[in-house]
Amino acid sequence: MTSTTSREWHLAHRPHGEPVPGDFRMETVQVPAPVTGEVLVRNTFLSVDPYMRGRMNDVPSYVSPFQLDQPLTGGALGEVIASEYDGLAVGDLVLHEYGWREYASGPGTRFRRVTPVPGVSPSAHLGVLGMIGLTAYAGLLDVARMQPGEIVFVSGAAGAVGSMVGQIAKLKGASRVIGSAGSKAKVDLLVSKFGYDAAFNYHDGSVNRQLRAAAPDGIDVYFDNVGGDHLEAAIFAFRTFGRAAICGAISSYNSTEPPSAPRNLSLIIGKGVSLTGFLVNHHRNRAAAAAAEIGGWLTSGKLVYQETVVDGVENTPAAFLDMLRGANIGKMVVAL
Amino acid sequence: MTSTTSREWHLAHRPHGEPVPGDFRMETVQVPAPVTGEVLVRNTFLSVDPYMRGRMNDVPSYVSPFQLDQPLTGGALGEVIASEYDGLAVGDLVLHEYGWREYASGPGTRFRRVTPVPGVSPSAHLGVLGMIGLTAYAGLLDVARMQPGEIVFVSGAAGAVGSMVGQIAKLKGASRVIGSAGSKAKVDLLVSKFGYDAAFNYHDGSVNRQLRAAAPDGIDVYFDNVGGDHLEAAIFAFRTFGRAAICGAISSYNSTEPPSAPRNLSLIIGKGVSLTGFLVNHHRNRAAAAAAEIGGWLTSGKLVYQETVVDGVENTPAAFLDMLRGANIGKMVVAL
Repeated sequence: MTSTTSREWHLAHRPHGEPVPGDFRMETVQVPAPVTGEVLVRNTFLSVDPYMRGRMNDVPSYVSPFQLDQPLTGGALGEVIASEYDGLAVGDLVLHEYGWREYASGPGTRFRRVTPVPGVSPSAHLGVLGMIGLTAYAGLLDVARMQPGEIVFVSGAAGAVGSMVGQIAKLKGASRVIGSAGSKAKVDLLVSKFGYDAAFNYHDGSVNRQLRAAAPDGIDVYFDNVGGDHLEAAIFAFRTFGRAAICGAISSYNSTEPPSAPRNLSLIIGKGVSLTGFLVNHHRNRAAAAAAEIGGWLTSGKLVYQETVVDGVENTPAAFLDMLRGANIGKMVVAL
Repeated sequence: MTSTTSREWHLAHRPHGEPVPGDFRMETVQVPAPVTGEVLVRNTFLSVDPYMRGRMNDVPSYVSPFQLDQPLTGGALGEVIASEYDGLAVGDLVLHEYGWREYASGPGTRFRRVTPVPGVSPSAHLGVLGMIGLTAYAGLLDVARMQPGEIVFVSGAAGAVGSMVGQIAKLKGASRVIGSAGSKAKVDLLVSKFGYDAAFNYHDGSVNRQLRAAAPDGIDVYFDNVGGDHLEAAIFAFRTFGRAAICGAISSYNSTEPPSAPRNLSLIIGKGVSLTGFLVNHHRNRAAAAAAEIGGWLTSGKLVYQETVVDGVENTPAAFLDMLRGANIGKMVVAL
């Protein structure tokens, strides 16, 4: 076997504020045939996720910044097409981090075989059956420690994680689940499809007032994907001993100024409220439990999921930009 | 028995920003003799505490606002001088909430008898043996869940609560305890008397830089009495899974604008950090355990405490204002 021609995306410029298409550059490269211990994978689905925006800044964070003029990375699913690694065979479906490209090669240990689930798109391994499902599950149950009978608020509720959180909350006995999203179509879906009891469009007015109307008795748990006004509104709405799982702050990812903190943070004292940040990586030990329970819900039809699928490796940056703008419902993936 | 002449402090004006002496007015009143079920108490010590500042605003909070032209209230210690209540006898030492006055009367159930501890001033029941000790104990061990070997940072470290927290942290196995305070004299005392391994004066420069110098390996626990820049610096300094117990935010109690810090709140996501507010009232169930353990440390000389004592009911507002400005070391009390 000789080398394989592959298109891959490089970071051409570090975005200032909202990224633009010119920040990305597609390169055509030759991927060499695998040597001993390596595999060659043809990617079938690429993941685009909010956290990638942070890696485009030249700021040390919990994950290192992307390098300029180097291929971008991210979650991807593919099929092994050549293997010099004993643990993987041609035809295996594998999950890995060499995204933003058509073909990936590397040490076999960097690729994890996944088992196809009948009736479920393989891309679900990038979402509900993978990191997204674990994020929703561990954030709600382990970080926010949601208890049956509690009132739950989720921001970014129509996104990849949010559309899972509301359903898991109801399956685990939440008495009421409220979601916010950025369009009427999303708000309608939250109630009609994703099990939310109430939902509002944050473009329609003050988040604080809309949350108060949707949760007149207050909230016990807040699953935060947005930050900013949403977190402030949740702090106002919290009942005693309320808990926030802080998963993301997409409202500020493109900010060029530090966000002003929730101006009502001191209210957490009197209410005994906790705000806890987390990464899905902190909860790897729950992956098996989450996959088992979520898989069961999927099979039995108790949990539904939706994806927004964009076709073609050439459209990966556009999918990423659309996702940051909230154009997706559920997980955004690129199908190759 | 006829009525008793008593001086008591009323709230004359709601302070705007830093309170001024004219916000308080001393009244001379007649306290009636107790009727059935009541007691009359001569106060010997009055407590002045940071939380009282919040009650002077006309803002609903976890405790209701003080009423204008009504007597202020707060922790006090006194001696029963007349009793029509079976549960208390003349001569009993009692703890209660009718502070800011010389004599208090009311239902016997509102007064709790305390046992004098040999060698310890009765005023310690307003401090280390009472709510202050419980605040430090529960905040550090239950809210921040400090573990042996961890690095602890305490702001307002020379205050009533802070001077306890550092010592309890060391007694419970903290590997390093760092405190901040507002004067060189306090900083010296933190290290020489209150068991701190390192301390700095926040007037000497950036809290963030001074904390980084004192805790080059970062911190695991932050006990926050101050808020603002201190909380922001702690968030920068936190290691993975750091925990803040948010006890108070004295830096903002006189603010007329919402505080802007911490601007780095989103860092809690990658670090898996939690910020948890609390009131001592949330931890009443730990009072017996705290009193037993703290009492033992006091008796064995393992834990020391200091009070700042102001004489005379007429100086209660001055004591309160001085405490807000940080003039006290340890608990500030008024002796009558």
